[in-house]
Amino acid sequence: MTVTPGNHAVGFVGLGIMGKSMARHLMAAGFTVNAYTRTRAKIEDLLSEGAVWKDDPAAVAADSDVVITMVGYPHDVEDVYFGKDGDGGILSTAKAGAVLVDMTTSSPSLAQRIAAAAEAKGLKALDAPVSGGDVGARNGTLAIMVGGDQEAFDHVLPLFEAMGKSIALLGPAGAGQHTKMVNQTVIAGTIMGVAEALVYAKKAGLDCKKVLDVIGGGAAGGFQLNVLGARMVDGDFDPGFFVHHFIKDLGIAETEADGLGLDARALKLAKSQFERLAQEPGGKELGTQGLFTLYDK
Amino acid sequence: MTVTPGNHAVGFVGLGIMGKSMARHLMAAGFTVNAYTRTRAKIEDLLSEGAVWKDDPAAVAADSDVVITMVGYPHDVEDVYFGKDGDGGILSTAKAGAVLVDMTTSSPSLAQRIAAAAEAKGLKALDAPVSGGDVGARNGTLAIMVGGDQEAFDHVLPLFEAMGKSIALLGPAGAGQHTKMVNQTVIAGTIMGVAEALVYAKKAGLDCKKVLDVIGGGAAGGFQLNVLGARMVDGDFDPGFFVHHFIKDLGIAETEADGLGLDARALKLAKSQFERLAQEPGGKELGTQGLFTLYDK
Repeated sequence: MTVTPGNHAVGFVGLGIMGKSMARHLMAAGFTVNAYTRTRAKIEDLLSEGAVWKDDPAAVAADSDVVITMVGYPHDVEDVYFGKDGDGGILSTAKAGAVLVDMTTSSPSLAQRIAAAAEAKGLKALDAPVSGGDVGARNGTLAIMVGGDQEAFDHVLPLFEAMGKSIALLGPAGAGQHTKMVNQTVIAGTIMGVAEALVYAKKAGLDCKKVLDVIGGGAAGGFQLNVLGARMVDGDFDPGFFVHHFIKDLGIAETEADGLGLDARALKLAKSQFERLAQEPGGKELGTQGLFTLYDK
Repeated sequence: MTVTPGNHAVGFVGLGIMGKSMARHLMAAGFTVNAYTRTRAKIEDLLSEGAVWKDDPAAVAADSDVVITMVGYPHDVEDVYFGKDGDGGILSTAKAGAVLVDMTTSSPSLAQRIAAAAEAKGLKALDAPVSGGDVGARNGTLAIMVGGDQEAFDHVLPLFEAMGKSIALLGPAGAGQHTKMVNQTVIAGTIMGVAEALVYAKKAGLDCKKVLDVIGGGAAGGFQLNVLGARMVDGDFDPGFFVHHFIKDLGIAETEADGLGLDARALKLAKSQFERLAQEPGGKELGTQGLFTLYDK
């Protein structure tokens, strides 16, 4: 009962840096991909490789057995599913038995609302945000954190396996988004610690590369220190993950934490620090390791 | 010109959980160890294994070619080097040409003061705090972060190699302590992120072990999440590293950061959060992963 290239067409809405790489993996696995993204010109390459253009999300859904969405903000997700400007959205045209998979990082409550609306129409919805960035998308090594029911998860698993490496169903609708928020909350505290520590090292006159070598293998070690810390030390603040996207994620996490009665002080501090960074010229467009520059003044 | 068991006796002041394991590695490497610690009864085992008891730090220094100190707080370091209660301290009796190595996590400015006092007497001093905890001390796999001059470092390197694995000279006197503060500042932010994230996961009703599995290999992954986060999820708050020791370290780091003109907000928040935890019954004696319990109420 899993999807197969011969029997199932896949719709893909939102083909930015992440989405385009992900869609390519589905095409490489043999699936027909029905594609819509806001600016058609940006995916002419994908269309020339065989993706089929559709004029809006509703048109994608009308011809697809699984619909994947990978857009920007929760309000974009809302528009794409529930419709906007005369376009009825995915839910208005989805085929009977279709599975709708939102891979955008969005809010758990919106994921639950979509799942309920889908169920009311005899459809299934999964929330399946990812971690691993543009590199993970390109290499097909994303972590995919899924919320929803087991049957729908099993059905689309071959698609997840084409795009990712570490794939888990973590609970009912919203659990994927909640897990992504857990991930971002760890990172929020960690990146502040790394930025403050490496600016300390610089101001104390230490050889920062030697410092990274000696502490990177110990209790401070991890991806944020060893990879993003090394970029800080090299003065490389190019985006792997944009500051403005991280602020979006931290806003969702903050709202959810408040709702859960969690006094997430480090998360709130991180959000305010990244908002300060975003107010600097060019700050929004830096990678998250750009937080170093806020302290290094 | 390096130390050898045949030609050099090693003094060791402060034989707690860490120091005792470290001294054992020196003895296993063939060195005579002259030992002093506050409570003799606690090292009877070490004495029966061949360590030589001395009645105070000055007596240790009088008979040793290298003196290692591993005590508690900066004021203990000060007493041990500069003397207290009629004991003149290590600096009053150290042999000509001796190298004094403080492996306590202490303040960079005190390390510089000791180095200057040592130099005035024709001695050399190194600051060489460690990372890796009781397990690293026991296994001889500590990271050792050293400040001081190259010649003294080269001279005592065989001792460091007997006790540790990742060993680096990071700059002049104080650079070892500064590097340790960099390490602790990374951890300060990270452990808050991990604790907030895992309490979020619990309150959101997620399967926390599955969450750790899926996020531990990605951009949130690292020692604090993968090792201490797993202990949080298991409800294991036993000390690997005591809350009250971490508060000491964060206090030193805060003072230094202030002195460097660094607005280390996450570091200050971490210190205040651990101070709140220390006010809870039994909080001081938890391992740092006990921060979870502060949020999980």
